[in-house]
Amino acid sequence: MSNPVVAELLRGGLVESRHSGAVAVSDPEGRLVLALGDVERPVYPRSAVKAFQALPLLESGAADKLGLTDAEIALAVSSHGGEPRHVETAASMLARAGRDVGTLECGIHPPSYRKAAEALVRAGEKPSALHNNCSGKHAGFICLACAEARDPQGYIQASHPVMREIMGAVNEMSGATLSGDGVGIDGCSIPTQAAPLAGVARGFARFGTGAHLGPERAKAAARIRKAAAADPFLVAGSKRFDTDIMALFGERVFVKTGAEGVFCASFPELGYGVALKCDDGGTRASELMMAGVIAKLLPLSEHEAEALKPFVAPVQRNWNGMEVGRLRLAGGLA
Amino acid sequence: MSNPVVAELLRGGLVESRHSGAVAVSDPEGRLVLALGDVERPVYPRSAVKAFQALPLLESGAADKLGLTDAEIALAVSSHGGEPRHVETAASMLARAGRDVGTLECGIHPPSYRKAAEALVRAGEKPSALHNNCSGKHAGFICLACAEARDPQGYIQASHPVMREIMGAVNEMSGATLSGDGVGIDGCSIPTQAAPLAGVARGFARFGTGAHLGPERAKAAARIRKAAAADPFLVAGSKRFDTDIMALFGERVFVKTGAEGVFCASFPELGYGVALKCDDGGTRASELMMAGVIAKLLPLSEHEAEALKPFVAPVQRNWNGMEVGRLRLAGGLA
Repeated sequence: MSNPVVAELLRGGLVESRHSGAVAVSDPEGRLVLALGDVERPVYPRSAVKAFQALPLLESGAADKLGLTDAEIALAVSSHGGEPRHVETAASMLARAGRDVGTLECGIHPPSYRKAAEALVRAGEKPSALHNNCSGKHAGFICLACAEARDPQGYIQASHPVMREIMGAVNEMSGATLSGDGVGIDGCSIPTQAAPLAGVARGFARFGTGAHLGPERAKAAARIRKAAAADPFLVAGSKRFDTDIMALFGERVFVKTGAEGVFCASFPELGYGVALKCDDGGTRASELMMAGVIAKLLPLSEHEAEALKPFVAPVQRNWNGMEVGRLRLAGGLA
Repeated sequence: MSNPVVAELLRGGLVESRHSGAVAVSDPEGRLVLALGDVERPVYPRSAVKAFQALPLLESGAADKLGLTDAEIALAVSSHGGEPRHVETAASMLARAGRDVGTLECGIHPPSYRKAAEALVRAGEKPSALHNNCSGKHAGFICLACAEARDPQGYIQASHPVMREIMGAVNEMSGATLSGDGVGIDGCSIPTQAAPLAGVARGFARFGTGAHLGPERAKAAARIRKAAAADPFLVAGSKRFDTDIMALFGERVFVKTGAEGVFCASFPELGYGVALKCDDGGTRASELMMAGVIAKLLPLSEHEAEALKPFVAPVQRNWNGMEVGRLRLAGGLA
């Protein structure tokens, strides 16, 4: 039950806080290249598998039918900061489906990027469902429904034909089963299906290489990876790990965060997929863990190694800008 | 090294995330009533010992000399949300010392209470050091310096006479020593001294009862407890655990949160002090742990038991208001 400590916060010479977690790195056949902690226990992959959830949109032909751009594809797999380009791109996706913000069923929250939230307040505007960090994914679901001439209403329910199609694709990719016990509801109201990290990692190895996927799915995966690499801002936003890492590595790394400390990645050149979770759900630890996996496995140029440093050993500063703490990798990731 | 799991997040029938931690409950003699995990390992108590840091302000006579009100005493031990009453009260403390916001050395950040931050943006104003969640504590330090006719400049340094006085009081209360290894810098730039949870808990047992304290210190502790109970909004603010719990229990519970998952409390009627830390620094877990300790040890009326429920089994809702998860106590706190 107990996973190893993988990250520590140092302050004044002592370890102040500790994060434990599990990491699976797999090849497309499911052979584990790296396994730390319990990688067979089912975890909810949350938003880290948005790329799997977007596969039906592409492989069904819906994206081409509606003329979705690469930018819109990138937003369909995003957890974005609610910045103006995110909001505009989500609105444009809905327009291609002949819909608008009223069709979104993800709920409303202020932009998660603080400056975008402040700008909205300053303009005297209220946040809409377009600002929800999942609006791009939901717009993609609505595009899929409309391209297939299905009524999108209720698309967030597990029983809706569109959601069944999406959950089926996720299951095929992650090796999850549709048992009642392992299906939770995500922050944006759609189902999230528990799967072992080992299975999710294998899915991302296939996603990154096309191996063991049918030709349409392999093509869909490649387009998603290219779209994210071409415009990583749309996948997350300002001051975000996913955006910064994909801007650094381009098509060499596809990476996606999820709530409760989940992180997934594909390293196409190595043929590896990654799935990890920090036990306590902490984002600071899951980001550090992913940076550690990249540093451990990916061949790095001097420039890349230098650029990765702030992610592998993040410094904590206080409100006067003084360095007061430092996160470091521990155990099998150190 | 490994502390037990004390809190779990449930989603869709599975445990999604886990928090481990340690809890010490002590009487004034240092006898442990409850000990979970390693309670002898030094931890930084951070803002959870602001009440100890405020003792010199009262026992030196500085508070009376400057005519500090009970509201100002409450703010001196607060980690507040930067709401208007917090800001006004901090400004009033500084005015009593013949100073203003310019003397604060805590740094600047936007109000931590979101609505207060939004109101500031809406008014086109920038946050000042008065909005820093530690401004009341720092104003108290400045009051102490000025009442003793000392130049407050540099009061955040461990070498400043006022900070030496404060650190001495904290050490006496918590059993910490001033070794270089166990002194970190807090978010507000002052030193934070590591101490075992068992020692901090014993200190809060004494703080809650006056036992083993000199008469001036016992009087100071009692005034702080009464001031916090009389106006718990000033100790934290809107939608905050500390404020809600002290509003519920009045003088029966003094409770104070600290960064990185620390929480401390006094239960004067039982003669117990509490110090706990969630290993990963998570606030949701440390609040749940404190609610669990209260539920386990304090005699509760029906009304109190009912009012405590949302803290002992907090529900997570998504952006559509649906219940998607639930935190629960685990192991020795369940």
